[in-house]
Amino acid sequence: MNRWVELQLRVRYAETDAMGVAHHAAYFVWFEAARAELCRTKGLDYIAMERDGLFLPVAEARCRYRVPLQYDDLIVVRVQVREIRRSVAFFTYEIHRSEELAATGETVQPLVGKDGKLKAFTPEQTARMLS
Amino acid sequence: MNRWVELQLRVRYAETDAMGVAHHAAYFVWFEAARAELCRTKGLDYIAMERDGLFLPVAEARCRYRVPLQYDDLIVVRVQVREIRRSVAFFTYEIHRSEELAATGETVQPLVGKDGKLKAFTPEQTARMLS
Amino acid sequence: MNRWVELQLRVRYAETDAMGVAHHAAYFVWFEAARAELCRTKGLDYIAMERDGLFLPVAEARCRYRVPLQYDDLIVVRVQVREIRRSVAFFTYEIHRSEELAATGETVQPLVGKDGKLKAFTPEQTARMLS
Amino acid sequence: MNRWVELQLRVRYAETDAMGVAHHAAYFVWFEAARAELCRTKGLDYIAMERDGLFLPVAEARCRYRVPLQYDDLIVVRVQVREIRRSVAFFTYEIHRSEELAATGETVQPLVGKDGKLKAFTPEQTARMLS
Repeated sequence: MNRWVELQLRVRYAETDAMGVAHHAAYFVWFEAARAELCRTKGLDYIAMERDGLFLPVAEARCRYRVPLQYDDLIVVRVQVREIRRSVAFFTYEIHRSEELAATGETVQPLVGKDGKLKAFTPEQTARMLS
Repeated sequence: MNRWVELQLRVRYAETDAMGVAHHAAYFVWFEAARAELCRTKGLDYIAMERDGLFLPVAEARCRYRVPLQYDDLIVVRVQVREIRRSVAFFTYEIHRSEELAATGETVQPLVGKDGKLKAFTPEQTARMLS
Repeated sequence: MNRWVELQLRVRYAETDAMGVAHHAAYFVWFEAARAELCRTKGLDYIAMERDGLFLPVAEARCRYRVPLQYDDLIVVRVQVREIRRSVAFFTYEIHRSEELAATGETVQPLVGKDGKLKAFTPEQTARMLS
Repeated sequence: MNRWVELQLRVRYAETDAMGVAHHAAYFVWFEAARAELCRTKGLDYIAMERDGLFLPVAEARCRYRVPLQYDDLIVVRVQVREIRRSVAFFTYEIHRSEELAATGETVQPLVGKDGKLKAFTPEQTARMLS
């Protein structure tokens, strides 16, 4: 069973820097866009969650850059939930350009209420995210 | 009387693009940072305003780019309130690098309540912003 | 004949701000992404142009914001070349969300060589961009 | 001996997101701004290095977020070179707001020539960066 969700996108000019390649901070924005796609695909309504006072902030983020990406490159950002531990989701990412693996990454994201306290994922949420 | 408020900053690497110069969208971010400085200088507490349900969104923004800016350039962003018409503030900007005028801009910003309706600036707010 | 080129995209979380809506600087990034799509659609290879030492920097940019956009909104960014005057291209933009016109904008972009001097668009380039 | 270099900055409105706090990708941009300050302070001219065809791209980046930052917060970004191994520099970062440690981070950055090949840091560069 394939738990990866994929988002295809193009490197924007604004995302490049004077080195002529995509800036390293942009990758985290792409990871996040792929997470939005994952939520949509898995039937998790993140906007409704926030309306209900539940947030999934980033507690830790990491990226390993393997191949520089250029303006207008067509890339595929893959994401999956590697694990859920009670209140914390562990996401893994890959960025591909054609046959190349251009970058890998992770984020660690606790589920937090409006009061700033950790909330446990419901069994249904956990099941959906790991599906 | 000098109504300009100035903010000095350096062009960040992330703000450059593959053309090797500062990306044109970054200028609007600098304008906004200078506006924050203007509010602070004029004794307007924008954070308290937002807490009270008053927002100053951007209804129109414009920039004319005269001289490209490079990574690490030390620039001065100047801002003043050119005019206030009941519920709308008109801001003017200049970006200087040493003796050069590198860019000019304007934003048009209505005062809006949480209900999305226009609110009139109080005489005191108007006086402060035009001081 | 329809000269508009359209690009569909979603508002990213990173593009929102504390007001809960898309930040006004993001619109210029979307305009640029639509321009890239226009070049592709009209058969203009912008990457090859840059390789040949021809650049299309932004000399002036303007946006009018009509309806705020939210995270994850699916929007259509439309662009067309309104006019070409020898060395300068005038682009016009519209951003639509469903039936709503959310924003309009313009950029003025001269064709510039590596020496910083204005270059005239070739008749073929002009014909393609206005097609 | 204190090897930390510090850069003070304010959280920009454009750097916040709909959660009402600074977006996690912005931290990497601040790390980079602090790196620029480190280079300046240690007498390393990064612009000249790039002109000479030497680049310091980011091969790996990581951030741990401890306390959310708000719009207009005055923060101090600290950076030091933890170690240099022949061609690779290891940077460490801390972000402080008043007495709080708001975030920590690392980047791993190889020295690369225009040909894409690793270059060794000169003893003088190493000495400066570790001073």
